[in-house]
Amino acid sequence: MKEHAFLGVDLPIIQAPMAGVQDSQLAVAVSSAGGLGSLPCAMLSHDALRTELASIKSQTNNPINANFFCHTPPTPNAARELRWRSELQPYFSEYGIDSADIPAGPGREPFSHAVADILEEFKPDIVSFHFGLPAQDLLARVKIWGAKILGCATTIEEAQWLEANGADAIIAQGLEAGGHRGIFLSDDLSAQVGTFALLPQILQRVTVPVIAAGGICDAKSVAAALSLGAAAVQVGTAYLLCPETKSSPVHRAAIKGEHAHQTAITNIFSGRPARGIVNRVIREVGPINDHVSEFPLASTAITALRKKAEKTGSGDFSPLWCGQNPSGCKEISAAELTRELAGDV
Amino acid sequence: MKEHAFLGVDLPIIQAPMAGVQDSQLAVAVSSAGGLGSLPCAMLSHDALRTELASIKSQTNNPINANFFCHTPPTPNAARELRWRSELQPYFSEYGIDSADIPAGPGREPFSHAVADILEEFKPDIVSFHFGLPAQDLLARVKIWGAKILGCATTIEEAQWLEANGADAIIAQGLEAGGHRGIFLSDDLSAQVGTFALLPQILQRVTVPVIAAGGICDAKSVAAALSLGAAAVQVGTAYLLCPETKSSPVHRAAIKGEHAHQTAITNIFSGRPARGIVNRVIREVGPINDHVSEFPLASTAITALRKKAEKTGSGDFSPLWCGQNPSGCKEISAAELTRELAGDV
Repeated sequence: MKEHAFLGVDLPIIQAPMAGVQDSQLAVAVSSAGGLGSLPCAMLSHDALRTELASIKSQTNNPINANFFCHTPPTPNAARELRWRSELQPYFSEYGIDSADIPAGPGREPFSHAVADILEEFKPDIVSFHFGLPAQDLLARVKIWGAKILGCATTIEEAQWLEANGADAIIAQGLEAGGHRGIFLSDDLSAQVGTFALLPQILQRVTVPVIAAGGICDAKSVAAALSLGAAAVQVGTAYLLCPETKSSPVHRAAIKGEHAHQTAITNIFSGRPARGIVNRVIREVGPINDHVSEFPLASTAITALRKKAEKTGSGDFSPLWCGQNPSGCKEISAAELTRELAGDV
Repeated sequence: MKEHAFLGVDLPIIQAPMAGVQDSQLAVAVSSAGGLGSLPCAMLSHDALRTELASIKSQTNNPINANFFCHTPPTPNAARELRWRSELQPYFSEYGIDSADIPAGPGREPFSHAVADILEEFKPDIVSFHFGLPAQDLLARVKIWGAKILGCATTIEEAQWLEANGADAIIAQGLEAGGHRGIFLSDDLSAQVGTFALLPQILQRVTVPVIAAGGICDAKSVAAALSLGAAAVQVGTAYLLCPETKSSPVHRAAIKGEHAHQTAITNIFSGRPARGIVNRVIREVGPINDHVSEFPLASTAITALRKKAEKTGSGDFSPLWCGQNPSGCKEISAAELTRELAGDV
């Protein structure tokens, strides 16, 4: 039996859920090709979630992964938001934005009973969580239909916690990975670990399968991660140029640019640490800013700038999510990329 | 021809030079076993350097690597040193140390003509440099006898600089690595890269051989790094428990402890970023302190505390250098470990 048999897919490739840059189209393409496609659900309304899950079901019977956040929503803090907006005030002035007029930004809803109600209509084979796991009663609802639960660990301690709290497999997210760090037990970024060190040490300490993520972008690095003992790999960045991905034009341009490998972990786009290509606002306000509003509230103010800037073709204020190894990004179909990653060209 | 043939050794294993925790004994053991042993020279007096090189020559004809720093020595800054000592004052009080009485700490001399004079008596086959490369006239002196030059890169840009400035091979030092970061083009720690992302991208951009370092500690990870295209690997942490290593008792105890994997990049022990196991002084003063004296001057003040604390068996003020993956540390001979790493047990 292959190490990734528990995923129910042919290839040991999981397409990483990438909220904001993809929808069901990418998930369907990857799952249809024999990998595990993922639908990032945290930024979807309940209606949109139902529509997306129905769309997937109508296109493939292969397993897919529905991914959710499970953070604790913060209490809005007017003083802190004011302080955060004062950091951005020079840019508001530059773009002629009245800070008082900024509409609410994109929310991120944590997994909830209301969401579980929708999910159980579709019973996805795999459900993954970022930022820990939901409460036990919520997790139990998902397990009822036999869904396998994937949890994301950025440290050895998080992996042990996830196994103890019901994860069926652990995603070892090395600090090379793009987008939001799954970090949930500590906010100490100095404790974040590279894939070469994280994967083997998690394997030594848990009994469930471990999925490697971070820096993996082509057949060679997939093979290397599997040889280190990973049951499968999770790849995000490499899919960013696929036609099925909804990356914005500024995002695609940055990925194709000569500075794509210059990334940093920053908290300025959402309030939580996430890796993206270094741009003007990261350089000038970040990468880590102590005055940022709490996740996900920080995104409201900066999204206003992003929208204005992107209209002029500028990615200066956009979250250009990207891992440390964008060398595997290709403008080919997600199905082709999935097969290439698996060494099955 | 094997990828590591340019090193002139049987096995693709370089023992990382570890100033302060090893001398010629470890280098001889590794080189005699068919790997490339390294002598860290930056903290040796000229007499000691000559003695160590002579000792090696009398014990093995196999190639060895002489490793040097090539930083620019700082101008002592009394005000900055005072500021740094004021950070440590609570500990001086705790240990009954008069800050005015602290003797000069261990120096780190950069590579120089005086050192080259000694080196050319012994003509080591390999000479490696940390923190960039020495000036061209100095580098030329080493190349005269055919020594191969290894330079250490922590970013893609540093690798390109090293190749352009005369390195015969590049050590790609992923941020998992223990001890001092080789960082020399930028002091932006957010730009440091994990091995899984650094190695392949350097390989794409240079034509000289690339040696992988960081997170590599056993036969499996050596094989994974070689499969990613490394010509050889450089391993430090795994040797820390070998009897030929001069690690202190507190250092060995920390490596064997259950928190050995909890490391951080810190500048408080020397003034430059280096990775070690998190201990009391890192937790309370670091990991990164903006008031630290310039490298290597910062070490003077903290060494006084270290000496007092170690006398009571405490590693609270010791630099417990260690990479993010100490899982390969074994109390076996360096020869045995070298053969194990190479998969040649």
